[in-house]
Amino acid sequence: MTEKRPFDVLNTALNNSVLIRLKGGLEVRGNMISYDIHMNLVLDGAEELQNGEVKRKLGTLLLRGDNIVFISPA
Amino acid sequence: MTEKRPFDVLNTALNNSVLIRLKGGLEVRGNMISYDIHMNLVLDGAEELQNGEVKRKLGTLLLRGDNIVFISPA
Amino acid sequence: MTEKRPFDVLNTALNNSVLIRLKGGLEVRGNMISYDIHMNLVLDGAEELQNGEVKRKLGTLLLRGDNIVFISPA
Amino acid sequence: MTEKRPFDVLNTALNNSVLIRLKGGLEVRGNMISYDIHMNLVLDGAEELQNGEVKRKLGTLLLRGDNIVFISPA
Amino acid sequence: MTEKRPFDVLNTALNNSVLIRLKGGLEVRGNMISYDIHMNLVLDGAEELQNGEVKRKLGTLLLRGDNIVFISPA
Amino acid sequence: MTEKRPFDVLNTALNNSVLIRLKGGLEVRGNMISYDIHMNLVLDGAEELQNGEVKRKLGTLLLRGDNIVFISPA
Amino acid sequence: MTEKRPFDVLNTALNNSVLIRLKGGLEVRGNMISYDIHMNLVLDGAEELQNGEVKRKLGTLLLRGDNIVFISPA
Repeated sequence: MTEKRPFDVLNTALNNSVLIRLKGGLEVRGNMISYDIHMNLVLDGAEELQNGEVKRKLGTLLLRGDNIVFISPA
Repeated sequence: MTEKRPFDVLNTALNNSVLIRLKGGLEVRGNMISYDIHMNLVLDGAEELQNGEVKRKLGTLLLRGDNIVFISPA
Repeated sequence: MTEKRPFDVLNTALNNSVLIRLKGGLEVRGNMISYDIHMNLVLDGAEELQNGEVKRKLGTLLLRGDNIVFISPA
Repeated sequence: MTEKRPFDVLNTALNNSVLIRLKGGLEVRGNMISYDIHMNLVLDGAEELQNGEVKRKLGTLLLRGDNIVFISPA
Repeated sequence: MTEKRPFDVLNTALNNSVLIRLKGGLEVRGNMISYDIHMNLVLDGAEELQNGEVKRKLGTLLLRGDNIVFISPA
Repeated sequence: MTEKRPFDVLNTALNNSVLIRLKGGLEVRGNMISYDIHMNLVLDGAEELQNGEVKRKLGTLLLRGDNIVFISPA
Repeated sequence: MTEKRPFDVLNTALNNSVLIRLKGGLEVRGNMISYDIHMNLVLDGAEELQNGEVKRKLGTLLLRGDNIVFISPA
C-alpha cells in the first residue's frame, strides 16, 4: 500500500466506516460520506463510543475538522 | 443519501432540529434558522441538555462556529 | 421569524438584554450596545451570573469575541 | 450613552482605571495608558486581584490581547 | 548526521517506524507512509501506547499535524 | 509617564529586569535582551519563580510570544 | 552578550545542547541540529525529563514550534 498524500486516506475511506478521535477524548464511528479541505467531514450512522462500546447513536454527524485528532479507516 | 460537501448537511438541516456538541462538553438542541461560512449558527427554541435531559431553556441562540465539535440533524 | 445570517441576531439584539456564555463557563448578562465583525461586543449594566444568580455587578464590559460560546437575546 | 464600536470603550477608558479578566481566571486592575488593535494593552499601577482583594502589586504591565476575556472600565 | 531543515527528518523517516506524541498525552507508533506541509501524516500498522505498552491496535491512521507535539523516528 | 503604544514598554524594558507570566501559570524573571514583533523574547540570567521564590535557574531563555500572559518591567 | 533578535539565540544554539519546555509541562533536552521559521526544531540524542531527571531516551526528535514554551541553551 502506498499513499501519496495524507488526504488520499480520506478519499479511500469515502463511503466506508471510520473511527474518529476528537480533542477531549470523544470517539465516534460511522460511515464517512463527505469531507472538505479543512477535514470537516460527515458521518452517516454515527455512534459515540466509550472504551470501544457504543454509548449513543447519533445518526448523521457533521464534524469540524479542527477538533479531530485522528481518523482511522475501520 | 449522498452528500457532496460537509456544508450540504447544514443546508439540509435548515429550519429543522439539530443537536450541537460544543467544546467543553456542553450540548444544545434547537431549530437551526441560519448559518454562515464559519459555522456560526442561530438556533430557535434552543435548550441546553445534560445527559440528554433539558437543563435550561435558552430561546434564540447565536453559536460561534469555532466552538462547535459536531452538529447532528435530529 | 426568519434570520438571513447569524449576525442578524446581533443587530436585532442591539440595545437589548443578552445572555453571554464564555469559554471556561463564565456567564454574563447585560444590555448590548455595540459589536463588531469579530463578535467583540460591549455590554452596559453587565452582571456576572452563577447558576442564574447575580454574582457580581460589572457595569460596562468589553468582551472579546473569540472567547464567546453563545449569545442569547434575553 | 451610545458606543459606535467596541474599541470606543478602550478609547474612553484611556488613562482611567480598568478591571481586566484573563483566560484562566486571573484578574488585574490598573490605569490603562495604551492599547493597540490586537487589544494588547499597558496598565500602570497594576494589581493582581483574588476574589476582589489585592493579591500582588505588579506596577507597569503589558498584557497580550489574545489572553483577555473582558475589560471593564472601573 | 546533519539535517538542513526540520522537515528533512520526516522525509528520512518515510516508510519507517515513528513514535508520535499528541497534545493531551496520547502516544502512537506506526510506519509513516505519507506527510504534508501541515505535518498531517499517515501511519500504517499504528498502535496506541500507554506507558510504552500497546493499548490498542489502530491500523491505518491519518493524524492532524496541529495536534502533534513531537515525532521521533524509532 | 505616557506610553504611545503597548510595544513601547518592551523597548523601554530592554536590558532591564522583567517579570513574565506564561499561560499555565509559570513565571520567569530575567534581563530582557531582545524581542520581536510576535513578542518572542530573550531573557538573560532567567529564573523560574514559584510564589515569588526562585525555583530554578535557567540562564538564557527564548520565550515564545504566543504563550505570554503579561510582561512587567521589574 | 548582545542579541539582535530572538531567533539569534537559536542560531547560536545550533549543534549545542538545549532544554525545551513544552505546553502541558513536558521538558526535553538534546542537541539542536536544525530549526525553521516556525520554531519547529530537531533534537538529536533527546531525553524526556521529569524534575530534572532523565525519564526516557527519545533519540532524534522533531518538535512542533507551536507547542514550545521556552528554549534554553544548556
